[in-house]
Amino acid sequence: MDKIYLDNAATSRDKAAVVKKAILNYYDNIGCSPGRGGYEDSLKAGRIIIEARNTIADFFNVDNIKQIIFTHNITYALNIGIKGILKKGDHVITSTMEHNSVLRPLNRLEKNGIIDVDYIQCDQKGRLNPAKVKAAINKKTKLIILTYASNVSGTIMPVQEVGEIAAKNNVYFMLDTAQAAGVYGIDFKKLKVDFLAFTGHKALMGPTGTGGFAISKKMAAEMEPLIEGGTGSKSDQETQPNFLPDKFESGTMNTMGISGLKAGVEFIQKIGIEKIREHEHKLGKLFLEGLKKIPEIKIIGPANLKEQVPTFSITAGDRDLGQLSFELDEKYNVMTRSGLHCAPFAHKTLGTFPAGSLRFSIGYFNTIEEIEFALNALKNIL
Amino acid sequence: MDKIYLDNAATSRDKAAVVKKAILNYYDNIGCSPGRGGYEDSLKAGRIIIEARNTIADFFNVDNIKQIIFTHNITYALNIGIKGILKKGDHVITSTMEHNSVLRPLNRLEKNGIIDVDYIQCDQKGRLNPAKVKAAINKKTKLIILTYASNVSGTIMPVQEVGEIAAKNNVYFMLDTAQAAGVYGIDFKKLKVDFLAFTGHKALMGPTGTGGFAISKKMAAEMEPLIEGGTGSKSDQETQPNFLPDKFESGTMNTMGISGLKAGVEFIQKIGIEKIREHEHKLGKLFLEGLKKIPEIKIIGPANLKEQVPTFSITAGDRDLGQLSFELDEKYNVMTRSGLHCAPFAHKTLGTFPAGSLRFSIGYFNTIEEIEFALNALKNIL
Repeated sequence: MDKIYLDNAATSRDKAAVVKKAILNYYDNIGCSPGRGGYEDSLKAGRIIIEARNTIADFFNVDNIKQIIFTHNITYALNIGIKGILKKGDHVITSTMEHNSVLRPLNRLEKNGIIDVDYIQCDQKGRLNPAKVKAAINKKTKLIILTYASNVSGTIMPVQEVGEIAAKNNVYFMLDTAQAAGVYGIDFKKLKVDFLAFTGHKALMGPTGTGGFAISKKMAAEMEPLIEGGTGSKSDQETQPNFLPDKFESGTMNTMGISGLKAGVEFIQKIGIEKIREHEHKLGKLFLEGLKKIPEIKIIGPANLKEQVPTFSITAGDRDLGQLSFELDEKYNVMTRSGLHCAPFAHKTLGTFPAGSLRFSIGYFNTIEEIEFALNALKNIL
Repeated sequence: MDKIYLDNAATSRDKAAVVKKAILNYYDNIGCSPGRGGYEDSLKAGRIIIEARNTIADFFNVDNIKQIIFTHNITYALNIGIKGILKKGDHVITSTMEHNSVLRPLNRLEKNGIIDVDYIQCDQKGRLNPAKVKAAINKKTKLIILTYASNVSGTIMPVQEVGEIAAKNNVYFMLDTAQAAGVYGIDFKKLKVDFLAFTGHKALMGPTGTGGFAISKKMAAEMEPLIEGGTGSKSDQETQPNFLPDKFESGTMNTMGISGLKAGVEFIQKIGIEKIREHEHKLGKLFLEGLKKIPEIKIIGPANLKEQVPTFSITAGDRDLGQLSFELDEKYNVMTRSGLHCAPFAHKTLGTFPAGSLRFSIGYFNTIEEIEFALNALKNIL
């Protein structure tokens, strides 16, 4: 058996064949920078960007393609959102299950005396009670930030309820979809999101160097751009254009990467997101059942696919999890990720700080055979 | 004849064959996210990043590979530098030949009442008198920002002199190498640079989605990171690590792009930067001689390769330059870029605002035949 990749929560190693084809098409046949006007191949590059915006707007149910902004990765997107909207005196609500891409920007603003933050305590399975979010809102609350699902325990957050609470209280709602987009249907309008951050290179199957956000017009108007520069528009002005998407997109786009991302999302749309989820859930259930039969293993988080995405964290008594991950790779070619997964508060919430956990994360291209093989490998080592 | 690409100042459409090979090697054989520790393929991805840092540190003569930071593009690099170092009350000196990637961030900070900026007036050929820079320094001057060469007229700036002035006056020196790196030898230490911003996808021949900066340890220690998040290091802390390169690199790296960039820079090192410059200068001289023989054409800028890089801007009497660019592409497959090139102050300096210019920019893969063909195309249209 080939190498078994169970680190899909970090990046999707395996992509649809159309993704490579799209990358090579840009590389071999276009290669130019998008331009407003200009020569034909530059227009072709521009069209790829427009079509990609269109595909992603459709995918997340966003009204206007101008509301789709491309960035380097989702961390950049979250920083642009957090640091662009928050002003002196603002109050922010988030959960104890967030990633460092949310915690660290918030921490900076808090330390600099700009904002106050309430971290809503989640339970030991990583679950959030939306009533606690509601109770934390005060007159200064500007923003609620929530992950769709934890990158440690896979726990799915009550995003619909929190979206409703945010909307009713006239607070912006920022959603981190890193661990869910491409497997779970995420509806920008239905979830009442103002800022939907997405990563391109995980379940959306794009290459590295892609990601971005969808943004409500209201929030976009209030935000300051964090990154400014050449946009190819209003080049007569030394100030950043105030319209979308240019307000938040500066410098040469990653047209090669975006070509691949567009193809990845189109692949998902073609297969159908329900079918993708069904497949991943089938493997997830099989994996969970197997894990439960290994007495040494403790599953961190809900341990059921009604409450989580197919990303599983475990501990194994006193076993060093870095060593366990190493042995899985070394002896069985099974790739996993151990440690704190850039989410210290989540591990504190789940009771796995500071030792961390060993994480297995399933992707669309995993098979039943691979899951069985990984379970056997675990059994043999323990 | 194939299409003739003369928009190398925007991006290098043609790259060395090794660049594609490196991209595909990552895509086909690795595909994973770099990780500290973990499985073998993740380590392989990490090694690519380390080797790329090594290659670029060597290329720009930077002491320690940790001083090399990768970003989405050079615009992100400049924003991270400008917005990270400048504090309330600081004074900045720059030239009237800068790109919007410098002007727009400065303008934001100026408008927000944080900094004061002196824009040193260059002459009608885009040349800067370094004595004016020296004279503008005051007690509050924190930073001097200068482009190595104009993206409009190609004018080369007195970077060595300005670097000396900055160093003597204990002012940070930020150099925008977008139009020169890969063709001109740029020595971080010799030029006394504190922040060297580079683009990956122009003459360095990397793919889109690459760029970054080299930074002095002193400036790095004083800067705040603009983008924060997961670094794979100090994951137990909700604050950004304070060491290089992690302080300024968050989220998933563009490992695929960086693989290509590394191969591009290695290609340049193998050929030799002098040989690359010699070839581009030969074509540039030929092009200039040809341009001078077309009476309708006015060359903007120095019009000699001792004072400029092989990027040439022209006007042609009352001709609409957008139309001229379109005809060159439509009738002769010659790709150029007309307009203001995201540099309004430069065009004001050069006397070409607001109509702009038509720009021809030469790259290593252009040939004598292409230059002759482009000149004939111009003659035929005019």
